[in-house]
Amino acid sequence: MPYGLEERDRQDLRHRRQRLGQHLAAPVLLWSGGALARNFPANVLPFRASSHFLYFAGIPLQNAVIALVGGEMTLYLDDAPEAATLWHGESPRRQDWAEYLGAIAHFPLADLGPQVQDQGQQWATIAPQDPLTRQHQEQILGRRVGDPRSPHALDLALTEVVISLRLSHDRFALAQLEAAAAVSMQAHGAALAATVPILAQGGGEAAVRSALEAVMIRHNMTPAYSSIVTVQGEVLHNDHYHHPLQPGDLLLVDGGAETALGWAADITRTWPVSGRFSPSQRAIYAVVLAAHDACIAALKPGVEYEAIHLLACEVLAQGLVDLGILRGQPLDLVAADAHALFFPHGVGHLLGLDVHDMEDLGDRAGYAPGRVRSDRFGLGYLRLHRPLQAGMVVTIEPGFYQVPALLEDPQRRDRYRHQVNWERLAEFADVRGIRIEDDVLITEAGCRVLTAALPTAIAALEALLNP
Amino acid sequence: MPYGLEERDRQDLRHRRQRLGQHLAAPVLLWSGGALARNFPANVLPFRASSHFLYFAGIPLQNAVIALVGGEMTLYLDDAPEAATLWHGESPRRQDWAEYLGAIAHFPLADLGPQVQDQGQQWATIAPQDPLTRQHQEQILGRRVGDPRSPHALDLALTEVVISLRLSHDRFALAQLEAAAAVSMQAHGAALAATVPILAQGGGEAAVRSALEAVMIRHNMTPAYSSIVTVQGEVLHNDHYHHPLQPGDLLLVDGGAETALGWAADITRTWPVSGRFSPSQRAIYAVVLAAHDACIAALKPGVEYEAIHLLACEVLAQGLVDLGILRGQPLDLVAADAHALFFPHGVGHLLGLDVHDMEDLGDRAGYAPGRVRSDRFGLGYLRLHRPLQAGMVVTIEPGFYQVPALLEDPQRRDRYRHQVNWERLAEFADVRGIRIEDDVLITEAGCRVLTAALPTAIAALEALLNP
Repeated sequence: MPYGLEERDRQDLRHRRQRLGQHLAAPVLLWSGGALARNFPANVLPFRASSHFLYFAGIPLQNAVIALVGGEMTLYLDDAPEAATLWHGESPRRQDWAEYLGAIAHFPLADLGPQVQDQGQQWATIAPQDPLTRQHQEQILGRRVGDPRSPHALDLALTEVVISLRLSHDRFALAQLEAAAAVSMQAHGAALAATVPILAQGGGEAAVRSALEAVMIRHNMTPAYSSIVTVQGEVLHNDHYHHPLQPGDLLLVDGGAETALGWAADITRTWPVSGRFSPSQRAIYAVVLAAHDACIAALKPGVEYEAIHLLACEVLAQGLVDLGILRGQPLDLVAADAHALFFPHGVGHLLGLDVHDMEDLGDRAGYAPGRVRSDRFGLGYLRLHRPLQAGMVVTIEPGFYQVPALLEDPQRRDRYRHQVNWERLAEFADVRGIRIEDDVLITEAGCRVLTAALPTAIAALEALLNP
Repeated sequence: MPYGLEERDRQDLRHRRQRLGQHLAAPVLLWSGGALARNFPANVLPFRASSHFLYFAGIPLQNAVIALVGGEMTLYLDDAPEAATLWHGESPRRQDWAEYLGAIAHFPLADLGPQVQDQGQQWATIAPQDPLTRQHQEQILGRRVGDPRSPHALDLALTEVVISLRLSHDRFALAQLEAAAAVSMQAHGAALAATVPILAQGGGEAAVRSALEAVMIRHNMTPAYSSIVTVQGEVLHNDHYHHPLQPGDLLLVDGGAETALGWAADITRTWPVSGRFSPSQRAIYAVVLAAHDACIAALKPGVEYEAIHLLACEVLAQGLVDLGILRGQPLDLVAADAHALFFPHGVGHLLGLDVHDMEDLGDRAGYAPGRVRSDRFGLGYLRLHRPLQAGMVVTIEPGFYQVPALLEDPQRRDRYRHQVNWERLAEFADVRGIRIEDDVLITEAGCRVLTAALPTAIAALEALLNP
């Protein structure tokens, strides 16, 4: 059978379903979703199954529905028509999938509606992203789904249980996350090794992206998100790759692989395309790395993630004070959001089946009950605001950016005229953006960096750049 | 400005709009479509603009609408909100795009509905693939769109004009198709060069796919469709890549790049993973290549594409007779669909902005008015059934496959018991699937193979495999 699930994987899947059944009385229906047409119906966009479906079913079946009742799973799936064998080859039948995944029963999709109506029960569900599947879902359930303004009480209850389960990763999840991390580290290694030759050949960002993603493709993985490979590191979500590399540029590479079963990695490294950091780049890089290391050293169960974010801000502020870019006491600077001129985003997020895990549920997963986004500029972009617990995987990704929209804004320049030494800052003009990001598992004892085998130290990066 | 349109490109775009205005009195609205959520709203599937939008607007703007009236274009597009600058950087404004593309006016999207209603006219349109955009379209126009059972008369009229324009490629289109072909040939060259080392390292299909697609990514292009890289060549649309390469395997690689502006290439080569064809593989390959060459030699304006398909069938049948696999006269074998046991698909299709160009319109583009699909097994899968005309680009892709679902079907085995020498066929068991595919421009004088720089001859392929 495809995907190579082992018996212990299937045990973990069964255990997830049992825990769901223990915590939720209502029966549950989850849709996997379907492939959407790209430019014509037979040419489809890459299929990505719904993460909630993947969490309980394990594998990315297309156009499948699972019913989860009392810890047991029923699979609804249509067998491919005979004619499809010519074009797509022999594939497992519904019965094979059901046995493989441990479903207690299996039916064609046409049976789903009648069975749901016969049982006269209210089913809980979560909306998938694919709008055509959502239509099918609403038709089967006879009600709206996924409207954040008026969520169904059962769906809310299901959402809370799913969050509680998915916040802490089991053995199977960790094995997948480690596999994604391993390939992602190898991909960054290939991108590092390719950079100096690409500069010499007059190549650009696209060539480094090619080196990065080629490793993912070679391992039958896919980018978990649009890779960022940019000499304009100050553009936080840059998905263009048309710039040539120029001597003196820093290259910011934020790329992570996703396993065939949907589990993600998320790694950022920033390196000089010429192979050597300039003194100004070296100085700022050291500040960001200090923040990164301080955060990781502080991770353990019970610690508030917001405190980790604020720690990153303080270490960054201290470093920028030491470099003469900021003036004042770090704690005061952070309280005034002066650090956020250079570090406007949050220090990280949950990682799991989604690179921002469970972000399809809005802030329900990232924010503990009762908490809402801050209206402070230096805190409002924080995606995770919960106490840490063992089994969580989070990213730690402090950065330093010179964003023109922030630094050239007259109001901000006036507000921070005492805190920022603009003349000194001008000496660091060759640092457009630096980010250092790792994936970290919270353990009972503290934490373990899943992506530690890819170095962060300047000397180690330079060694990889100049083999 | 992005995408590097030259003045002559913009002239070609204007000329397309003028020709549309000359052939259609009704005003036209075309939607580009939007990026669809992958697993959460901020993590989107790769955006592909509607091909009809691309044909007249030129570039893949997201969530844009163009109005085409009397040969002139108006652009509806929202500027990115200020906050987006932080995450996505500075981007051109609507006014910049409008000037760049030669639009005579430009408005935010909110103006579209009122302007459409004020003018009290009936607008023609074509449905995009993206279901959310189609909802917006239906809301703006106040009617259903894209229902094949009851198409709107204006939409049908627009469709006919668009087909007539897009069937013959202009200079800009050809430049794009040639760029896609050049990168695709380079990609296949990289895949060829990588194969023997991958076999030696115990690698598999995924590693060859990586070599292929890395070239596309390096050139800021994308696969125009899911690459087929398979040792199971008999599975016609194989999009799995998990098999290791084994000595003796043939590898079928069907991959084409798409330019950033949406124009496609589509190339197939089949080669032995060990670097040398076996005698049986060599013999069948020569038969497929003879069909490929005969078809290309026969391409010229006025020739029926169905006749090209039948020519491929006859050459294949003759070759299989010569090898002792089939018995009888080639013309009789083709009339009996005996060739289709081994070549069940059509010999090719239109190529342009879509790899199956305009297949979103069903068979309206591929089939001349009044023609419908044959119910013969050997003809029913033909995607193109028109007389050829100068400016068309078509693929030529004969093949030979041993599909168990066909060859082990008791009814077929009985029906063709006199025509097939099953014992002789068994001597070619190491030929699971061979396809040879090139992209060909029909010219006034005959044709020009856009992908000719990638060799098809056995000796040349073996030279690339063993550099």
